[in-house]
Amino acid sequence: MCDFCKIINKEIKAYVPYESDKNIVFLDYEPINEGHVLICPKVHEDSITKIPDDVLKDMLVIIRKVVAAFEARYGAKGYTIMQNGGANCDYGHFHVHVFPRFEGDGFGWFDSCKPHAYNQEVSDGLKELLM
Amino acid sequence: MCDFCKIINKEIKAYVPYESDKNIVFLDYEPINEGHVLICPKVHEDSITKIPDDVLKDMLVIIRKVVAAFEARYGAKGYTIMQNGGANCDYGHFHVHVFPRFEGDGFGWFDSCKPHAYNQEVSDGLKELLM
Repeated sequence: MCDFCKIINKEIKAYVPYESDKNIVFLDYEPINEGHVLICPKVHEDSITKIPDDVLKDMLVIIRKVVAAFEARYGAKGYTIMQNGGANCDYGHFHVHVFPRFEGDGFGWFDSCKPHAYNQEVSDGLKELLM
Repeated sequence: MCDFCKIINKEIKAYVPYESDKNIVFLDYEPINEGHVLICPKVHEDSITKIPDDVLKDMLVIIRKVVAAFEARYGAKGYTIMQNGGANCDYGHFHVHVFPRFEGDGFGWFDSCKPHAYNQEVSDGLKELLM
């Protein structure tokens, strides 16, 4: 059983400000900003392509509430949502990071600095698959 | 009118692999990895708290298709979704980044390296607001 499943099953201690029958919200152990939570479905799946519709819809409602709570509690005017899936999903258990943002909080990301294609061919290639 | 609204209205050129009546998908001008797209509602709002339900649900369906397309086109086993909202939303127009991930692609994020609270009080404070 993965660590997130253990949190869901109350076998590992976590701080849980909210829970529904489909999803759980717990504080990130290493918060980027205070209030940083993970929203996690109770089903063990690693990708948004595998999470059932009703679970994702429930998650959307929760994300909205969390963002509103950040403003109410911290006066946060901004927020960030991040989700890494598939091979990039820690524990192989889908989870969405949501945390409040503040001016000059220092959060950011970096990329590989490699040039990547931005053109009609890339767009057309995806288009075929999205029809 | 913001630049994303201009893309939606075809006043600014972008590469658009997919479009529904509620959302548009276009290539990010500075792709972190090839295939990096933005998914953008046609309504101009800056936060997930303000986007109508039906628009978000339509967006979820599209995100899933995009992630599946990354695997089909690039063999990508991983993906990342990012969304910065409120004061952190560029152009004040909600948009979700979705891009394929590859081993050793160099993508990552950094935080402020400040210690942040992880405790019962933080959890309880959010709990009150999430009830």
